[in-house]
Parts: sequence; C-alpha cells; structure tokens
Amino acid sequence: MDITEDELLAAIRRVLSVSDPAIVVPVGDDAAVVRAGAGNLVLTTDTVVEGVHVDLATATPRDIGYKAVAATVSDLAAMAASPRFALSSLTLSADVDAAWTMELFGGMREACDEFAVSLVGGNVSSAPVVSVTVMLTGEVAPGRAITRAGAVPGDVVVVTGSLGGAAAGLRRTRDAVHGRNVTDEVRDAIRRHQRPTPRVGEAQVIARHGATAMIDVSDGLAIDVTRLCEASGVGVRLDLGTIPVHPAAAEGEALGGGEDYELIATMPSDAAASEAAAELREMFGVPLTTIGRITASGLASVDQTGTSRPLERRGWDHFA
Amino acid sequence: MDITEDELLAAIRRVLSVSDPAIVVPVGDDAAVVRAGAGNLVLTTDTVVEGVHVDLATATPRDIGYKAVAATVSDLAAMAASPRFALSSLTLSADVDAAWTMELFGGMREACDEFAVSLVGGNVSSAPVVSVTVMLTGEVAPGRAITRAGAVPGDVVVVTGSLGGAAAGLRRTRDAVHGRNVTDEVRDAIRRHQRPTPRVGEAQVIARHGATAMIDVSDGLAIDVTRLCEASGVGVRLDLGTIPVHPAAAEGEALGGGEDYELIATMPSDAAASEAAAELREMFGVPLTTIGRITASGLASVDQTGTSRPLERRGWDHFA
Repeated sequence: MDITEDELLAAIRRVLSVSDPAIVVPVGDDAAVVRAGAGNLVLTTDTVVEGVHVDLATATPRDIGYKAVAATVSDLAAMAASPRFALSSLTLSADVDAAWTMELFGGMREACDEFAVSLVGGNVSSAPVVSVTVMLTGEVAPGRAITRAGAVPGDVVVVTGSLGGAAAGLRRTRDAVHGRNVTDEVRDAIRRHQRPTPRVGEAQVIARHGATAMIDVSDGLAIDVTRLCEASGVGVRLDLGTIPVHPAAAEGEALGGGEDYELIATMPSDAAASEAAAELREMFGVPLTTIGRITASGLASVDQTGTSRPLERRGWDHFA
Repeated sequence: MDITEDELLAAIRRVLSVSDPAIVVPVGDDAAVVRAGAGNLVLTTDTVVEGVHVDLATATPRDIGYKAVAATVSDLAAMAASPRFALSSLTLSADVDAAWTMELFGGMREACDEFAVSLVGGNVSSAPVVSVTVMLTGEVAPGRAITRAGAVPGDVVVVTGSLGGAAAGLRRTRDAVHGRNVTDEVRDAIRRHQRPTPRVGEAQVIARHGATAMIDVSDGLAIDVTRLCEASGVGVRLDLGTIPVHPAAAEGEALGGGEDYELIATMPSDAAASEAAAELREMFGVPLTTIGRITASGLASVDQTGTSRPLERRGWDHFA
C-alpha cells in the first residue's frame, strides 16, 4: 500500500459520506450507530475472494465492489426484506494500491446508492490475497420474511429473469477483454457476470402474491432448488424445457452456473404464479417463468421427451 | 476440506443452534431474521488473517475463534453499547479440515455465550489463507453512545486494566509452546494475547460516570489516544510514569503494543474519574488509572523526570 492505514481510512470515509438521516454515528468511530427500523432486523454476509470468485486480471475494482454489495443485497431480497445498512471488511495484498482500493469503494458506493443502502463501516487489513466481505442489515415486517422452508406439495416453482447469463459472461469475459467481436447477447451476459442485478423489488411483488418459499440463485439452479426443497422437506419435478436460458448461455450453464442472482420461489397456485408474472412484467419488464412443481419427495428433472431423471446436485461447492 | 460445503454448513448450524427468543429465522436461510431491540442499532466488523494477526502454528482454532469475536465485542464496548447478534464470514485454505473449522466455531460460540451474543449467520469460502471476519450488531439507548469525538480540554484521561500484556504474551507464546518454564505473569500475558477480555460491563460504568469520549486499545495506546484526540479536535499530555504496565510487559509494549482491548476514556473531572475507578474496582476488580489530561492541542508525553516529548504515533499500521 502506498499510503498509511489511517490515510486510507480517511479517504474511505470521504467516499462513504452519506446524508442518511438514520445514521447517528457514521463510519470512523469504533462502531456505527444507526436508528433501527420498525420491523425485524435481517442480517447476512458474503465474501468475494481473489482467485476464487474473482480474477483481478479481468475484473475492475469498481465491478468487484459493485458485485460484492449486489450479492449480499440478493440474499436479503430472497427473504423479501429491504436492505438498509452495510459494513465492509477488506483484505488487501501488496498487488493493489490506494487508487485501486478507492475504485473498489466507489463500486460499493454505486451499488449501495442503487439499492438504497448506507455503507456505515469499513475495516481494512493486509493479507496475501484481496478479499471483500460485505455484511448487510435489512428490515422486514414481522411475519413477512419468506424463508426457504415453506414450500408444500402442489406449489408451483417459478424463477425470475433468465439463467446461465453470469456463467456465460464469465466464459466470454476474456474474449471481450481481448477486443474480439462480441454480440449484444454476450455483452449482456458479461454485464450479468460483472454487475448482477439483485431482484429486490421483484421479491416484494412475489411475496405479495403469496410465495411460500424463496431462495436466490447464487450457486446454481439445481443446487439452490435442492436447498429450498431440503429446507421445506419436499421434493420437486423440474421441467427442463421451460427453464429460461439466457440467449448467450448453454443449457448446462442455466442449470449449474451460479451467480445469476435470480429468485426461485414457490407459489401456492398457477393463478398466483401468473398474477405475479403479470405484475412483474408490467412493473419491472422482468419475466417470471413456471419451471416445475413441488412434490412430496424426490428431486427430478423431466426433459423435452418426457424422460424423468434424478436432479443432479450440480453447482458451486467451495470444497469439492 | 474433507467434507462438502453443505455438509460443513450443516455442522456449523448445529454448533450455532441457540435458544435466543429474539431469533425469528436462525442461521441456514438466505439471511437471519431477528427481533430488533428498542434502542439504536450499533454495527461493527473486524477481521483476523492468518500470517498477519494470527499464526496457525501456535494458535489453536478455538482461541482464534474466541479472539475474533472478543475483538468485535470490544469495539461495541468502546461505544458503551451492548452486543447482541453476530455474523461470521470465514475463508478456509487447504491447510485446515472440518474438525479444525468446527473447533474455530466452538471458540466463537464460547465467546458469544460469554458476552451474550447470538451468532446468527455463517458464510464459508475457500481461499489461499484462513481469515475470520466477524460482524456484530449491538444496542444502545438513543443519545447514550460514547464516541471518540467528545473530549474537551481539561478532561482526565483514564485507562482500564493494564497495557502491554497482549504484546508480551505474543512474544512469549513460543516459550510456552516449547514447554519452557513460564511465570504466572507470563501465563496471564499469554492468555491476554490468546483470549482477550473486552470491557463490556466496565464501559457501562465509565459511561454512567460521564465519560466524554472512549476508544478501545486495539492498535496500541499511543496510536489509539491519538485517534481519540484527532476525532475530538484536542491535544493530550500523557504521564508515562502512571501508565499501568502489565507485569510481564516492557514499557514500549504498553505504549505501542496492540490487542489489549482495554478502554481509554476521557472523564469530565478528577472526581468523576475516581468515582468510576472505585465502582470498577468493586464491581469487576478492574483498576481504572488516570494517565493524563486533555489539552487544547498537541500530543505530548511526559516522563518520570518531567521531560516532555511529542507522543510518538507508534502502533500497528497494516500498510507501514
């Protein structure tokens, strides 16, 4: 690092300076103090590690910061909660300098501004690799959080947007870096990989239409649907032919690629699913697609020929 | 890692299972949901990195976990807040296995139980090095948080307990590991290094006696006093001869050694300082020592001969 820790912290404080009237003691003291909201408090955290989740050679610090915040916002969206305050904890290696770090904070600030989050604390530490941990608080009215655990047999499985875009974008990033011709669809996939859009408003609409369970696609459709079913103690039958595959993605990327940050929800009826879909299309221009049905037990996928197979639990495992 | 990510998360969930009635949705979903307290919300985060803050060859995972939680609890204590809910984010290298990780969580759980904190979320990721990030929420009645910024000229500077113990303990840890004879004082210093005690209850007493500013000693007395003075826009005159040096520590360790997690506070009068000291002694058996006075400007230290020198801003800087 080319400046001292206290100089870096002072620079960070300037980037984080916000006029949120709920902040009582801002970043820069031992802890931040904020006015608590009226509802329940929702808490989540996520970490991005150099070489594991992100490649410093292809990702800009601004995108890394943006994505780190967006991923945690997606966790709160999956509870139908509203994000509110964030803390970040960075480890910085000798490969990055103060300018790089301030760009990273700039990206975090951009995402925070976009999702109405106030970044109220920042901690930095030296380390052999760069990592960015974001912790986020949010609010939800008591009794209104949508967990992974409420799905019952007969529920309709829906997903927002399209899947596989982030995985395709990751695969094609180097093409774009090297100036090769890329189509608009590939460009969109790369943007989804670099700057994912958590479905905060969409989650509120889905919840209002009676969603019984919800999870975001962070590690891959198959593994995240499996997690929802395990938490609910139910099975599922997914119709592979109905899965909305991103135009730049392969089917395998849609099933097993992570980081799309779309929402998977279970709805109590086909009518509830189609009413939610109509409202999502109108309010956000985002499709909501029915991709299967909750069953009593067993995880199955059915292909276009009608052949049923066990749903493969593929997706990202940090320790596989 | 010798088990899958989901198996590890399931094991972590069992360690974290608590019966805190304020938890609405416990660890294991996209985010935790808890009932918010009546006061303001206080937020802080801290990270421990292998090779920077901790040596895996000498520290047990249980101590690493304990200390990671204790350090963040100390930040809340320094605001006179009560700790409440924690999230942890771990990066794990190929050098550690599931048993090591569960011991780490065991240590976090021990510290949480000791300071009445509920650990409601855990995130794990692979990485080249082990790191432990803890984010902590707490509560404080509106208007009752003690920041670094309220000191005024004439205030009395006090410190809890003794200083330099953690630095001396770090220096002597290898002696103990190799079975060399160590005195009780050295053993106490090593315990302070491995399992620091944040001054949560002490902070409440100090605040009740009118503390105008407060900070915990995480990076070293000299640098942390400097931070308090900078935040308050004041100077200080420290009496070196009065600093309570841990019996196993050198004077330099008391001034420049970090991680003691004692509290430095400024009190409005000598009477307030001695009343707070009497109550601390009675309630906790912990001394509160007057070590200097706040001045209009300038950071000075005065030695036993009466010679005044500029206070050297020594202490831990991650990027020095």
